[in-house]
Amino acid sequence: MKFKIALCQMHVTEDKEKNLTKAESMIAEASQKGAQVVALPEMFNCPYSNEYFPAFAEAESGETAKRLAAASAENSVYLIGGTIPERSGASIYNTCYVFDRNGHQIGKHRKIHLFDIDIKGGIKFKESDVLGRGHQITVVDTVFCKIGIAICYDMRFPELIRLMTLKGAQLAVVPGAFNMTTGPAHWELTMRARALDNQIYFAAVSPARDMDASYHAYGHSGIVNPWGAFSGQTDERESIVYADVDLDYVRSIREQLPLLQHRREDIYRIEEL
Amino acid sequence: MKFKIALCQMHVTEDKEKNLTKAESMIAEASQKGAQVVALPEMFNCPYSNEYFPAFAEAESGETAKRLAAASAENSVYLIGGTIPERSGASIYNTCYVFDRNGHQIGKHRKIHLFDIDIKGGIKFKESDVLGRGHQITVVDTVFCKIGIAICYDMRFPELIRLMTLKGAQLAVVPGAFNMTTGPAHWELTMRARALDNQIYFAAVSPARDMDASYHAYGHSGIVNPWGAFSGQTDERESIVYADVDLDYVRSIREQLPLLQHRREDIYRIEEL
Repeated sequence: MKFKIALCQMHVTEDKEKNLTKAESMIAEASQKGAQVVALPEMFNCPYSNEYFPAFAEAESGETAKRLAAASAENSVYLIGGTIPERSGASIYNTCYVFDRNGHQIGKHRKIHLFDIDIKGGIKFKESDVLGRGHQITVVDTVFCKIGIAICYDMRFPELIRLMTLKGAQLAVVPGAFNMTTGPAHWELTMRARALDNQIYFAAVSPARDMDASYHAYGHSGIVNPWGAFSGQTDERESIVYADVDLDYVRSIREQLPLLQHRREDIYRIEEL
Repeated sequence: MKFKIALCQMHVTEDKEKNLTKAESMIAEASQKGAQVVALPEMFNCPYSNEYFPAFAEAESGETAKRLAAASAENSVYLIGGTIPERSGASIYNTCYVFDRNGHQIGKHRKIHLFDIDIKGGIKFKESDVLGRGHQITVVDTVFCKIGIAICYDMRFPELIRLMTLKGAQLAVVPGAFNMTTGPAHWELTMRARALDNQIYFAAVSPARDMDASYHAYGHSGIVNPWGAFSGQTDERESIVYADVDLDYVRSIREQLPLLQHRREDIYRIEEL
């Protein structure tokens, strides 16, 4: 069985309404072109900057979530709704909502690993100054397959993607915004390694690059197949990446190169706590 | 602190004595050029083929191990002695012996994950027809740093390299012989991902390619630094790769991009059994 996924690498502006309208139009376009699962990028309704997160934050039932639910129902697509700043009590989280084809929320992932780095001569960012940490591994069920959800820096942790795989995910979708230091060095490498090691499809969805913003996203949204090769990828500009996710190919690769069966569970153990 | 490592990508023939003499001469050359740690490839004294393993197999104290011990002492280098077929009772293992600068054996790794694959239109191999499985994770101590040892297909399992890292390894050395199907697709990718994810140096040492042998090794021995970039690599021909392993750089990368600190040990756990 195959299905078509669309990754919407959209420009994000300082105008939330513009961002929502843009997301809605890209979801509609992707659906018209046959996509059955559509994904948006990290912080698609808000510039990626600690200053903006509090002002743009919404509660779980806020306007953004309502409009995403409506867009998924209107277009009859599964929607992995990128991320937005989520306000919950005194905390703000970097959160992804997932909707089924009727607009019902079927999953929610709060970024587990916060991006606190300081590279000499490169990028410095400290999400934990403003954001709280999620505490759960997220795998959602669809009529096609189980889909693991992670957010950006989460993808650097092989334990997380392995555990999603062991929970049955055959596709991981990761809204993420790598930058001009870590993007060229690590974005494709990490996507390809997670797909290959876990024999899953691995998709990552970035905002388009905006050199006028304070944070320069790497872009290069794409999806890697279980052999570790890209099935589709774009550059840094606004565009939609389309690709087939072929579950027969997942099974075939797992038969020919049985990595998941060859794990030595008598020597090491990995588990969700 | 820095030290120099040499990866000896040697031609392996059907003549064990020639293989041993070649290994000895490459170890001597590497030492003369300043290498303090020298590594040999997988099955360096025996063609990589199930037919040859029984005839070439030696007990732990056999001739090959004795000559490797002597070569490490004569040249005053740590020696990661590639692998040979090891006979133990009724079983044969794919085994790596490690020697200190005085020729004392300080470690031994038996391949944990056996290579049993059948890729359509590509490589087919079933080590488990002839070889037994190792049962231990191997990390050896040197005056420079701890070194994790794995063998070829072992490197495909992120749990193993993660556990070596958590046991203190700052360098992994992997004698390995990928082939012309999996080599171009996965060799560099896997090396780079393990180095980046674990913030270690990751070296893999292949035999040179021999198109007259039944198994065509990919070659391309090399070493990747903890940022995920190659510090040195060769092509498919016989040669020695030299590179510095800079432990200050390991520390610096781990400070700037604190992946190992950011692991969420409250959400997942990985452990050696």
